[in-house]
Amino acid sequence: MSGTLGYVETQRVVLADQDDPLLLRGGGRLDHVEVAYETYGTLSPARDNAIFVCHALTGDAHAAGLHLGAKKRGWWDNLIGPGKPVDTDRFFVISPNLLGGCSGTTGPLSTDPATGTPYCLDFPMLHMTDLVAVHRRLAARLGVERLYAVVGGSLGGMQALQWVIDDPDALDRALLVAASSRLSAENIAFSSVGREAIMSDPDFCGGRYVEQGVFPWRGQKVARMMAHINYVSPQSLEAKFGHRRRSHGDDWTLQPDYEVEHYLQHQGQVFLDRFDALSYLYLTRLLDYFDPFADPGTAAALRRTRTRFQLTSFDSDWRFDSAQSAALTEQLRDLGVEVDWAELASPFGHDSFLLEPPGYHERIAKFLA
Amino acid sequence: MSGTLGYVETQRVVLADQDDPLLLRGGGRLDHVEVAYETYGTLSPARDNAIFVCHALTGDAHAAGLHLGAKKRGWWDNLIGPGKPVDTDRFFVISPNLLGGCSGTTGPLSTDPATGTPYCLDFPMLHMTDLVAVHRRLAARLGVERLYAVVGGSLGGMQALQWVIDDPDALDRALLVAASSRLSAENIAFSSVGREAIMSDPDFCGGRYVEQGVFPWRGQKVARMMAHINYVSPQSLEAKFGHRRRSHGDDWTLQPDYEVEHYLQHQGQVFLDRFDALSYLYLTRLLDYFDPFADPGTAAALRRTRTRFQLTSFDSDWRFDSAQSAALTEQLRDLGVEVDWAELASPFGHDSFLLEPPGYHERIAKFLA
Repeated sequence: MSGTLGYVETQRVVLADQDDPLLLRGGGRLDHVEVAYETYGTLSPARDNAIFVCHALTGDAHAAGLHLGAKKRGWWDNLIGPGKPVDTDRFFVISPNLLGGCSGTTGPLSTDPATGTPYCLDFPMLHMTDLVAVHRRLAARLGVERLYAVVGGSLGGMQALQWVIDDPDALDRALLVAASSRLSAENIAFSSVGREAIMSDPDFCGGRYVEQGVFPWRGQKVARMMAHINYVSPQSLEAKFGHRRRSHGDDWTLQPDYEVEHYLQHQGQVFLDRFDALSYLYLTRLLDYFDPFADPGTAAALRRTRTRFQLTSFDSDWRFDSAQSAALTEQLRDLGVEVDWAELASPFGHDSFLLEPPGYHERIAKFLA
Repeated sequence: MSGTLGYVETQRVVLADQDDPLLLRGGGRLDHVEVAYETYGTLSPARDNAIFVCHALTGDAHAAGLHLGAKKRGWWDNLIGPGKPVDTDRFFVISPNLLGGCSGTTGPLSTDPATGTPYCLDFPMLHMTDLVAVHRRLAARLGVERLYAVVGGSLGGMQALQWVIDDPDALDRALLVAASSRLSAENIAFSSVGREAIMSDPDFCGGRYVEQGVFPWRGQKVARMMAHINYVSPQSLEAKFGHRRRSHGDDWTLQPDYEVEHYLQHQGQVFLDRFDALSYLYLTRLLDYFDPFADPGTAAALRRTRTRFQLTSFDSDWRFDSAQSAALTEQLRDLGVEVDWAELASPFGHDSFLLEPPGYHERIAKFLA
């Protein structure tokens, strides 16, 4: 029987301090790393039932269940819960906010212990392996040495891939949904325009907007509106909005009029409340630079892993399209890695990984069985 | 033998004044309309060899040849000239800047005769038929009653379509390249984000930036960078730029680094010198609202026209994709209009209409023969 999780709470834990700093791939270090995370289900006595969930660009630790007083359930609540594909009756699920984020885990707006003020642009550039290093510390802190699976969509899937590269023996299964091992030039182009919008906003204040008491909301809204078009598909926009307007006939305006415009306005506006511009800059940039197969150590690590991969892509996804999953499948198979890849039909574009297109949840459930 | 035009000059002519104002479809009127235009070739004694060129969103009157002292030839110089598909040895070519533009023809930055100050946001909303009305005045002023052809790409093609609807007997041929008779929800979505970037720029000053001595350059640059991604194809960006960077290894930065980013920065920057933000708002909005087949008079006009249509679309164009040309072809044929439509293979996306993919120029030459 499939049910839903009840109330859940976000926990916090310090995973790096001055005695045990996080040394970063880019050369810097973080002397204080705090992580926000949630867990669902119970760790088995054998500690062999842990599934780690990695979130996408603008996600957070609250993947499933309900926060006290909140109306909206976690962002992957349809996938995670009792009797669901990621079955909390069976698995112990760990879901953190990622390093560089803005929902409880250390990021650019956190206080730099060296100065007592927010890092802002002094926050170091993050590599995928830095995010995974924090995940590994969290798993260890929770008493988990070996993972039954790591599951992630989009940027989340890339963390799962990096995890196998960094620790080829730690995962039994890696489930990557709508992910990529290397962004296209067009992917980078769109992200670059979003960053331009944010950094050229006068209220960006050279990245120190928090200390000025302002936020680059105009630019951040534009960046999100544009990115949102990337997350859906042309056909889903057409089906949902077509040419419907709020005004009529020749009553034309330069202001938003078509329903699709009001929808984007809403998407841009709500994003301002829940996400920080600096985290957006750092995490989109991390995605641009992600290119693990350019790293000489990757092939050796993957050759010896016994982690089984499941890749899922969606035919209408033009953010990280199926060709990117196909390329990654080939890269992995060339190294002898076992990969089960499928492209599923879904009209919802990249956002399909958060929804329930036919065959998707069944596929994940089967791989975890 | 194919040659090129020599020096050409932009002319100006007043086509509406208080005695003969331009009455607009939306209800307003313009008491002074000045048009910048160029002509190439010579009008035949029988006045039967005129070809009218309609430019796209950010084009201008300078379609071919060279301005004295300039280095860059007109934007459609590869198509128009002696011995070229639009053969200036044979045809008399008329190429104006469109109404609402910012390159010599009356637009939002022109002086409102009623106030003596620039219109800015008091400029009336323009319909496609208003642009065509000015074109028709210009043709008449130049002594042309009947057109051998009207040729246009993108927005230019839409003007050609509207012209046939407005005056079904005036054109022998209408050549529409990479055009559409109705934008998709995604098309509108992208344009809306561009307008948001411009109008939310503090230097937009409620549209009266000129009087403040500033320009919404930050927003206009973002709008153009984003739109430019729309004009090219993912495969052309990949082929041209791939993952090439200017920095090396782990020397990461939030600032532009990948070549594709520097390219977009350049595209955004040069656009500021040559285009006005208000014209961009008005003309993108005109495109959003263009929907001639929703107009009850359209079918009757097209049923009686004998204008022959040639539609050309490109397989990698995702701004106005082939499906839009296919839909227009069907709409026209359902009304008994003769249409020759072809989708050509070209990797260059929407911008293909300005380039020379195989078969394209030959196709236009043949239709004009």
